[in-house]
Amino acid sequence: MKAGMQAVPVPFTSEDYAARMARLVDQAVDAGLDGVIVTPGPDLVWLTGYRPTAVTERLTMLFVAPNMRPTLLVPILERPDAEAADGASAIGMTDWVDGTDPYEAASRLLQPDGRFGISDSAWAMHLLGLQSALPDTRFGALSQRLPMMRALKDDNELGRLSLAGAAADATFEEILKVRFAGRRETDVAADLARLLRECGHEQVDFTVVGSGPNGANPHHEAGDRVIERGDAVVLDFGGLMHGYGSDTTRTVSVGEPSRELREVHEIVRRAQQAAFEAVRPGVPCQEIDRVARAVIAEAGYGERFIHRTGHGIGVTTHEPPYMVEGEEQLLQPGMCFSIEPGIYLKGRFGVRIEDIVSVTASGGTRFNNTDQALQVVE
Amino acid sequence: MKAGMQAVPVPFTSEDYAARMARLVDQAVDAGLDGVIVTPGPDLVWLTGYRPTAVTERLTMLFVAPNMRPTLLVPILERPDAEAADGASAIGMTDWVDGTDPYEAASRLLQPDGRFGISDSAWAMHLLGLQSALPDTRFGALSQRLPMMRALKDDNELGRLSLAGAAADATFEEILKVRFAGRRETDVAADLARLLRECGHEQVDFTVVGSGPNGANPHHEAGDRVIERGDAVVLDFGGLMHGYGSDTTRTVSVGEPSRELREVHEIVRRAQQAAFEAVRPGVPCQEIDRVARAVIAEAGYGERFIHRTGHGIGVTTHEPPYMVEGEEQLLQPGMCFSIEPGIYLKGRFGVRIEDIVSVTASGGTRFNNTDQALQVVE
Repeated sequence: MKAGMQAVPVPFTSEDYAARMARLVDQAVDAGLDGVIVTPGPDLVWLTGYRPTAVTERLTMLFVAPNMRPTLLVPILERPDAEAADGASAIGMTDWVDGTDPYEAASRLLQPDGRFGISDSAWAMHLLGLQSALPDTRFGALSQRLPMMRALKDDNELGRLSLAGAAADATFEEILKVRFAGRRETDVAADLARLLRECGHEQVDFTVVGSGPNGANPHHEAGDRVIERGDAVVLDFGGLMHGYGSDTTRTVSVGEPSRELREVHEIVRRAQQAAFEAVRPGVPCQEIDRVARAVIAEAGYGERFIHRTGHGIGVTTHEPPYMVEGEEQLLQPGMCFSIEPGIYLKGRFGVRIEDIVSVTASGGTRFNNTDQALQVVE
Repeated sequence: MKAGMQAVPVPFTSEDYAARMARLVDQAVDAGLDGVIVTPGPDLVWLTGYRPTAVTERLTMLFVAPNMRPTLLVPILERPDAEAADGASAIGMTDWVDGTDPYEAASRLLQPDGRFGISDSAWAMHLLGLQSALPDTRFGALSQRLPMMRALKDDNELGRLSLAGAAADATFEEILKVRFAGRRETDVAADLARLLRECGHEQVDFTVVGSGPNGANPHHEAGDRVIERGDAVVLDFGGLMHGYGSDTTRTVSVGEPSRELREVHEIVRRAQQAAFEAVRPGVPCQEIDRVARAVIAEAGYGERFIHRTGHGIGVTTHEPPYMVEGEEQLLQPGMCFSIEPGIYLKGRFGVRIEDIVSVTASGGTRFNNTDQALQVVE
């Protein structure tokens, strides 16, 4: 592990959470909203530090609006957990009991003819309950109405993302030393998960090991396939460390690579580098996608790059801003996102290279810094 | 492990999934719906066998309606995974590409002025996207519109729930042998997780270890508290085995119990037994709750039983029917649910006893059968 990884971030305080909620109120008003409705998941963790042990059918909702104290509605039996959250002293709390109507309780915290943003991952059941209780209220997804709510990271958050990236890099350095040939993808995936934890992650979210033809399926996780000499293997892994995400991809060759693998890998590497070099404040997100795509298209593989170039990262590993055609949002210092072009040759192999990048005043900086040259493993 | 636990259930076939979708169409029509919209989670697993590796912001939706082949809309990069699902040959498939509008693609599969049920846990963002694309379409939560969709288990499902229950029971028998006093709750929780896996679970969902005052918080998971002699400890654990859930609770005493703990435990045991004996076809769900609550109220602890008596269980560990005041649904053979009364004495201790119960033609049968007497551990 690198020396810097031992650093422990300063804990977020109740004042930090209060400040986030206060800024959110201002942003909501600017966006023409009367308030924001937040449900368990990344929005709630970011605003209050509260992460229920499970997201269930029982309604938990935070209401943030001008001229009121932010208020969390919780099932009574989850109230002790909510009261133990780091940001609990920054919010009011009210509860509801099994057998009563939680939407009636929620509607008392909303303006009946108001417009509200609601967490993307709020359950449809809960939104329908609110819509039924308040037929004149209008709702919009937070990622549509306030897509930049969590996008600009402060120094503490940047520090955590940097630590998570360094831990993922240390994981990659270690995985290069394990045996690939003759072992199952799931065995290497288990190594990745173990290493992420050993390097400091408290949560492992994904450990993609896509060997040979499986690498041509970008969302293949890891299967029973036994890795063979001559395979390209896509390794895409990450999780949470100090509450913030890591996500990096390298493609390795088991034994000496074929000429074609070298060529395809070099195209992807050039696409990743070109997109990285395009990062600076004021550039539209879609431009990052276009730059990466142009390199791959010019090399004749445009049809084989079948996903967007990147996604934001923070308290969760997929969030706005997205580096995708049609996203006109301008990059600003403090935004963090993946740059992960790939080429997928169906039935044969895939190559993807991914770093997390942060926008600085003058350009971009990488939170992943392992060698992008094609590494050979045993 | 018990001898029966080595049995392996017959795999669900494409025909099984097709039959479930065909029955769902009939039920939807009977409920006045024009179709059903299903998103990743328990509904989708139950109908198609497809469980995406992650539930993300990218839209995946199954459309089931009369006079059309059930059709799954997937992100193109997840299509290979979807095509590998056990029920894939029972459905049509169509995909969408990053940067295009998935709701436009979805709206082509829906009747513009229709009424549709939608999975409870569908993301609000996706429901809002559909509502925006189809302003005249009406949506209702599936647990409201078709609450019994997954409630009546067939023999294969009952067999799996029985196996999961037996594995949870074997876990409890083993945990009685470990040391409690002087170890942290998280240590015992780790033992429970390991034992559940050793006994055949492929997924561990919760391992509650609520010692002393922590047991008085029904949703406490497990913390740093060091368990002491004299503690009551609530053990509530479960997960998935062969895709079906387990969920059982026993409260144990570390060393000899106090007279008060014995008394409270006996009240909860009698409440659990009385509710179990009330189970038979034709009884309203709320009656099960009332029977358990009456025993506890008569003993003077009515205010200390702060949650419903139970929840359904199947491919997920919380689903309809709920044993709660106001739920008038009548019990039918094949329904499976928890009976889990409890008494919570704030700041001191809690007691809960939980078995999974299945409704038979003549009454109820337990899938958990460990001794309900108060067990003493070291």
